[in-house]
Amino acid sequence: MEGGAAASTPAALPYYVAFSQLLGLTLVAMTGAWLGLYRGGIAWESDLQFNAHPLCMVIGLVFLQGDALLVYRVFRNEAKRTTKVLHGLLHVFALVIALVGLVAVFDYHRKKGYTDLYSLHSWCGILVFVLYLVQWLAGFSFFLFPGAPFSLRSRYRPQHIFFGATIFLLSVGTALLGLKEALLFNLGDKYSAFEPEGVLANVLGLLLACFGGAVLYILTRADWKRPSQAEEQALSMDFKTLTEGDSPGSQ
Amino acid sequence: MEGGAAASTPAALPYYVAFSQLLGLTLVAMTGAWLGLYRGGIAWESDLQFNAHPLCMVIGLVFLQGDALLVYRVFRNEAKRTTKVLHGLLHVFALVIALVGLVAVFDYHRKKGYTDLYSLHSWCGILVFVLYLVQWLAGFSFFLFPGAPFSLRSRYRPQHIFFGATIFLLSVGTALLGLKEALLFNLGDKYSAFEPEGVLANVLGLLLACFGGAVLYILTRADWKRPSQAEEQALSMDFKTLTEGDSPGSQ
Repeated sequence: MEGGAAASTPAALPYYVAFSQLLGLTLVAMTGAWLGLYRGGIAWESDLQFNAHPLCMVIGLVFLQGDALLVYRVFRNEAKRTTKVLHGLLHVFALVIALVGLVAVFDYHRKKGYTDLYSLHSWCGILVFVLYLVQWLAGFSFFLFPGAPFSLRSRYRPQHIFFGATIFLLSVGTALLGLKEALLFNLGDKYSAFEPEGVLANVLGLLLACFGGAVLYILTRADWKRPSQAEEQALSMDFKTLTEGDSPGSQ
Repeated sequence: MEGGAAASTPAALPYYVAFSQLLGLTLVAMTGAWLGLYRGGIAWESDLQFNAHPLCMVIGLVFLQGDALLVYRVFRNEAKRTTKVLHGLLHVFALVIALVGLVAVFDYHRKKGYTDLYSLHSWCGILVFVLYLVQWLAGFSFFLFPGAPFSLRSRYRPQHIFFGATIFLLSVGTALLGLKEALLFNLGDKYSAFEPEGVLANVLGLLLACFGGAVLYILTRADWKRPSQAEEQALSMDFKTLTEGDSPGSQ
């Protein structure tokens, strides 16, 4: 599928993607380190069940969701359908892991007799989860399920991209709120004494924001967008995109 | 300055801008209501000095910063220089109001003997303020101060736009963290009993996120971008943008 000049990978893109992956993996490792070192580790039974929540959410709704958005930039020269399926699958993995994280916290609350859904973090979290599910179903219906007319696809595409990026950013914001909540609940006055756990969690918070920024940068660089390819051009003869892509002969 | 068809305002844009302004004003009013009804109001002396912090930050770094970003979409048919000056001025107002908000919280901490800059909110806040100042200085040097070559301007423009949007989103995220902090400090266990203050503040948090989303939507709609105008086209004869804008005769 290697194409001509227009379909080649921009020189700086792999470095930015590598940097984003380094940030994302550090994020997951640091969440694990925080829970292991200061919160007693993770288990499904016992009080440690709560700790499955932050880890699942960081892996699912931050790291995997972010990577799913980058798929079209990374696999820019693969067949569109392959990339699409990978994009959809990564989002399914993210959704399932997030669901495990949701069950963990609701189950923990039920066992401890805690109130559900009173905090801003929980309101944002439920909003993110519902929007994410709706976005996935809409994306599947329009782009993967055969039958949606091309005119409808091309009108929905910009909305799908905008809401995809927005839901991802809201996920990062919700994670920051949750981290802050955990710190204030657990550390109390010790937070202001620069306890190691507080400093580590603050760094984790900054990394979360940086990962969000890095993914957004890669997504929004106009010259890094996936080039139109022959297979799509052939299918959209009646659309003006035909005149914007590179020549069908370049593939 | 009314132009031809290409320079006219897209039909839906005014409604979206009106909606964003309604959200922004509700946001400011609700912050005032929260501080007035549940936090004893605002004063520079006494413990109420703290309350100047959230109000200044919501007005400056959320509402005014957001509106400064929208200037190029709203005043799309005005002279570029006028719009530029308005964009820069709104950011100056935002910066000054944010500085008052910063002084309020540091002064309050000093008087009460509280530790500074230990929380994730404060780390993000300082980061936002420094980035905002640097972005303003860079924007001024490149775009308002005469002398920057056009090639440099056109290379810096995409970075300026990306970092502008990112700093705005980080400001919204930092406001959410601060709101959460204030709720957990002040309400404690009453938060989970769905006290009116907690519910009001959660709604305020969702409005903050919605305002961020609305501004981002208006900014990123490709067909709502400011059209190139004759005056710029005349000045950038050597750039390919000449071929993308509308005809100089349309102005």
